[in-house]
Amino acid sequence: MGVAAKIAPSMLSSDFANLASEAHRMIQDGADWLHMDIMDGHFVPNLTLGAPVIQSLRKHTDAYLDCHLMVTNPLDYVEPLAKAGASGFTFHVEVSKDNWQELVHRIKSKGMTPGVALKPGTPIEEVFPLVEGETHVDMVLVMTVEPGFGGQKFMPETMDKVRTLRKKYPSLNIEVDGGLGPSTIDIAASAGANCIVAGSSVFGDPDPAKVISLLRTSVEESQKK
Amino acid sequence: MGVAAKIAPSMLSSDFANLASEAHRMIQDGADWLHMDIMDGHFVPNLTLGAPVIQSLRKHTDAYLDCHLMVTNPLDYVEPLAKAGASGFTFHVEVSKDNWQELVHRIKSKGMTPGVALKPGTPIEEVFPLVEGETHVDMVLVMTVEPGFGGQKFMPETMDKVRTLRKKYPSLNIEVDGGLGPSTIDIAASAGANCIVAGSSVFGDPDPAKVISLLRTSVEESQKK
Repeated sequence: MGVAAKIAPSMLSSDFANLASEAHRMIQDGADWLHMDIMDGHFVPNLTLGAPVIQSLRKHTDAYLDCHLMVTNPLDYVEPLAKAGASGFTFHVEVSKDNWQELVHRIKSKGMTPGVALKPGTPIEEVFPLVEGETHVDMVLVMTVEPGFGGQKFMPETMDKVRTLRKKYPSLNIEVDGGLGPSTIDIAASAGANCIVAGSSVFGDPDPAKVISLLRTSVEESQKK
Repeated sequence: MGVAAKIAPSMLSSDFANLASEAHRMIQDGADWLHMDIMDGHFVPNLTLGAPVIQSLRKHTDAYLDCHLMVTNPLDYVEPLAKAGASGFTFHVEVSKDNWQELVHRIKSKGMTPGVALKPGTPIEEVFPLVEGETHVDMVLVMTVEPGFGGQKFMPETMDKVRTLRKKYPSLNIEVDGGLGPSTIDIAASAGANCIVAGSSVFGDPDPAKVISLLRTSVEESQKK
């Protein structure tokens, strides 16, 4: 038995003007989490959404809101996102080398689940201390594209990181994000990923429920091997 | 006869999870423009929404999307916002002293309407060159609160700026933003503002159409005097 599969449609690929109904649709179609891409136009060259959007969405759903912070100053977002109703708070290791312990502590003290993300160019060793310490994150998000935009091509070379993590930490939540869909899920699942972010492949398909189910099956089958 | 009144509900106070229907409701209730607050968490301590949200909203409405960029690097947003379907592009003078001519030129070349905004602490003289040059903005947005959050209290001391502008430029679009509602509109309208951003006072009222009509009447009556 492996770590539970979590399929997390990325709302960046949804119709932002109808976020409440898009969220309901995804949950009905079998999504476990809703992935929210928070970009500040500084850490990445795109600005997407912040706490006011999370707060509005929270009024319409009880779903787990898996927030991925692509911002230069994640500490500033702990309080606003907790108030807004965020569930998971995943920050980037590249901007948190000096204060990750304070960050994890504050995220937990606000009742959110801490995660750490890393860009394709960042060595996996950099997240080991964040997983192993007494103060530790509950999830590692391995970016499988350069963060910033939806619809990008999966980078298979990032799978070495997933394999390394899974071997070292059998019960860790390992999330992958970028270019995941029916044609790439098997490689990610067999490497050991259990939390799957999928945007274009879910929202771009006429039958999102089928895609979500296929992603889940791939994770579960890989874990049996 | 004065410059046409434009009432622009600030969507920051709407239900972001139902932006399309909130937008339709405001237009039906008599709004001229929809005001979109784009904040990057750097120029102001809040992150709200960016081009992906504008792009989704544009698919649901033909309304004039009056975008106010509270970001440190407005030049980077010209291309994405034009593609997303923005109508007005108002940048802050505080971060554009060195490149406002290039900025205005590029905004116009992309078919958007340029505007310049200033914070309460910025002297009005700083926008004169942007209004007077051959390359010039079509609107000045006088912030009547410190930008960053909705629901703040109107600062009457900012009205000197509006009076100065109106006296100097009789046909300029002058927008005010922050704390505007039935109790403050008369002072802003009589100072010479014609574009009125209103968030909490419109969305917080059970009868937004009545509030929008009241704001418009105040502007039109002031102009007759």
